[in-house]
Amino acid sequence: MGLKGKALVGQSGGPTSVINNSLIGVVEACLASDDIDGIYGMNGGIAGVLEERFFDLQAQPQSVLDGLKQTPSSALTSSRHKLKDDEIPKVLEILEAHNIRYFFLIGGNDTMDTIHRIEAACKEKGYDLKGIGIPKTVDNDLFGTDHTPGFPSAARYNALSVKQGGWLARDMREVDQFVVFQTIGRDAGWLAAAAACARQNDDDAPHLIYCPERRFVKEKMLEDVKRYIERHGWVSVVVSEGLLDPNGNPVSASTTQDAFSNTEFGAMGGASVGIEVHKMITEATGLRGEFQIIESLNMSAIDRATPLDLQEAYDCGSEAVRLALAGESGSMVSIERVGNEPYQSKLTTVPLSETAIRAKAMPESFINAEGNDVTAEALTYLKPLVGELPPFERLQPIFIEPALK
Amino acid sequence: MGLKGKALVGQSGGPTSVINNSLIGVVEACLASDDIDGIYGMNGGIAGVLEERFFDLQAQPQSVLDGLKQTPSSALTSSRHKLKDDEIPKVLEILEAHNIRYFFLIGGNDTMDTIHRIEAACKEKGYDLKGIGIPKTVDNDLFGTDHTPGFPSAARYNALSVKQGGWLARDMREVDQFVVFQTIGRDAGWLAAAAACARQNDDDAPHLIYCPERRFVKEKMLEDVKRYIERHGWVSVVVSEGLLDPNGNPVSASTTQDAFSNTEFGAMGGASVGIEVHKMITEATGLRGEFQIIESLNMSAIDRATPLDLQEAYDCGSEAVRLALAGESGSMVSIERVGNEPYQSKLTTVPLSETAIRAKAMPESFINAEGNDVTAEALTYLKPLVGELPPFERLQPIFIEPALK
Repeated sequence: MGLKGKALVGQSGGPTSVINNSLIGVVEACLASDDIDGIYGMNGGIAGVLEERFFDLQAQPQSVLDGLKQTPSSALTSSRHKLKDDEIPKVLEILEAHNIRYFFLIGGNDTMDTIHRIEAACKEKGYDLKGIGIPKTVDNDLFGTDHTPGFPSAARYNALSVKQGGWLARDMREVDQFVVFQTIGRDAGWLAAAAACARQNDDDAPHLIYCPERRFVKEKMLEDVKRYIERHGWVSVVVSEGLLDPNGNPVSASTTQDAFSNTEFGAMGGASVGIEVHKMITEATGLRGEFQIIESLNMSAIDRATPLDLQEAYDCGSEAVRLALAGESGSMVSIERVGNEPYQSKLTTVPLSETAIRAKAMPESFINAEGNDVTAEALTYLKPLVGELPPFERLQPIFIEPALK
Repeated sequence: MGLKGKALVGQSGGPTSVINNSLIGVVEACLASDDIDGIYGMNGGIAGVLEERFFDLQAQPQSVLDGLKQTPSSALTSSRHKLKDDEIPKVLEILEAHNIRYFFLIGGNDTMDTIHRIEAACKEKGYDLKGIGIPKTVDNDLFGTDHTPGFPSAARYNALSVKQGGWLARDMREVDQFVVFQTIGRDAGWLAAAAACARQNDDDAPHLIYCPERRFVKEKMLEDVKRYIERHGWVSVVVSEGLLDPNGNPVSASTTQDAFSNTEFGAMGGASVGIEVHKMITEATGLRGEFQIIESLNMSAIDRATPLDLQEAYDCGSEAVRLALAGESGSMVSIERVGNEPYQSKLTTVPLSETAIRAKAMPESFINAEGNDVTAEALTYLKPLVGELPPFERLQPIFIEPALK
């Protein structure tokens, strides 16, 4: 006999292709419990809680729950509301009024901070609430877990795009000599680094990868670009949206901030590092090339989701419920990698206090000394997550002897 | 007993996801013929011919030919070289020197013009050459065929992106109210229109589609956007890169031209209609939103290619060889649609003179009176080509009664 009451689950921040699998993982585990007598979904994240906007997840047809496993984006709808301290009593009042005893949020580091503060406030007030975080973010910048559900699928999306877009650039190199691919990644280069999984052959894309962990030096990048064009006749460049110049200013010239005081890059900030770098190369070399800014399309593409990611997302959701029912609170479900060949993982936990707010950068050892590529160690980490890519063929370079001399 | 000699095949202009299937269609049909005693591939399109750069396609391992059926981009490599009149004698000299009697180019309207001129010059000179064009272009702006191989897969890529990106925007609408998706399409809105196939429900993306066939009026677009945001809380806008304002100037402010004197839009021109429209909406409404510029990624994505497109691309290639061996010359293989339910097509031909140079716009009847969407007639044309999309689920709007009054 455990704590009796209702469960509340929410999706927070940007979505991933597999975030609804975590949601269904929670719902199915709650449905299987005798202690949980109602499952509420936050309509609009924590902002929706303040207005008592709850979906009745128990009343959803099974076909909807099954269908959501193959549906990207946040089925509950989401928000980026930063919970103010003076809003917490209202949240507690609402939790009590509905006898909500199990509290789950699927999100990133800002989200873990939100659970952490609500869970702590309940403890202080003596209201018995089990609050567990479920990791989620395509950025993979969350402490306390090997990786975050959502990252593997977004990483595969990037690798597929850079690989296939690279073939295009290579085969058009007599006309267009370079391609710049911009990926999301505000504070960490995980998604930029993942593009490296696209390489099979020496001249495969990407040739150059610039991550926000290192300051971006325009002159060095231009040297790198010229060297690769001399070698292969073309070059593929991957840039992370959050690149900073040596003075610490955004290369994208973004000047806007989100609700959590994070500088906004990419499309949202109305500025783009991809276009800036494209301009730098064109101006310095006179060469033609193109830029690609998929922005958040890799956050919502179930057709490119990986089976591993879908499964881990679901498992993190159901594990959160198992932990809460066992009396645990104040922690986040964490994925621990056990082996690489074959890839194996197990679920464990980490205190919310260790995951909240801060963004996890890639280890120094994942980026090469020149700061323009990833290392073999990074690939060992990334490849099992990205999974197999299509084994593209190329013509054998067998040429006909000229007839005219 | 037909004309004995070698075959030469080339890929021209930008690639498609399925262009190598047309190439293999040509190669396999040539291999099966007793009249053809050699199969050359142009390394670098017509520019490569001028330098006698030919791949030996007969010497390729079967595994390579099979593998290319699942490999995007132009395996032969391509060019955008505009053949000058005074280069034609050199081309003829090279064709004669190798005894090339069968000439195939896979390309769009500029490419058909190239074959047309070479074929005519051979006729005039009394050199017996069978020249057949194989249609290809993601833009679908080629006269004389129901559609071009490559378009269905690119159209599906756009529909998938707009549909899944639309779910993301819908579910984030408490934070970000709009999303602008820019697609290639210089003179014609086919690829923008294809995004309409993404709609299942009334509020599905895309809500607004602007094609270059109609002049783009900023004030009208802003009214449209505000109306949809009032109705749904968010809006999805699709824009074709080639949009012109009422004065006939590019909305993207592009000022560059390619070798065929076509204004360059999209990433290549260093200017972007997607970013301009994003800016217009933000400035006029103060709302947040994002833009997505996949640029040419839909030209090289075999994992999103449609089975129909792969098959038709192959069939157009092998049909070109069949026609040439039967003595036909100076024409392009054409796809004629025979039925829509189920979709059926047959192959026929059209004279090169009718397909060359000019770009085919969408019919007037495919765009609505307001100029901000496509019509039912357009969807009847587009849907069989795009094919089935994943059947995404959404939560039933069943809400919990508030406990606090």
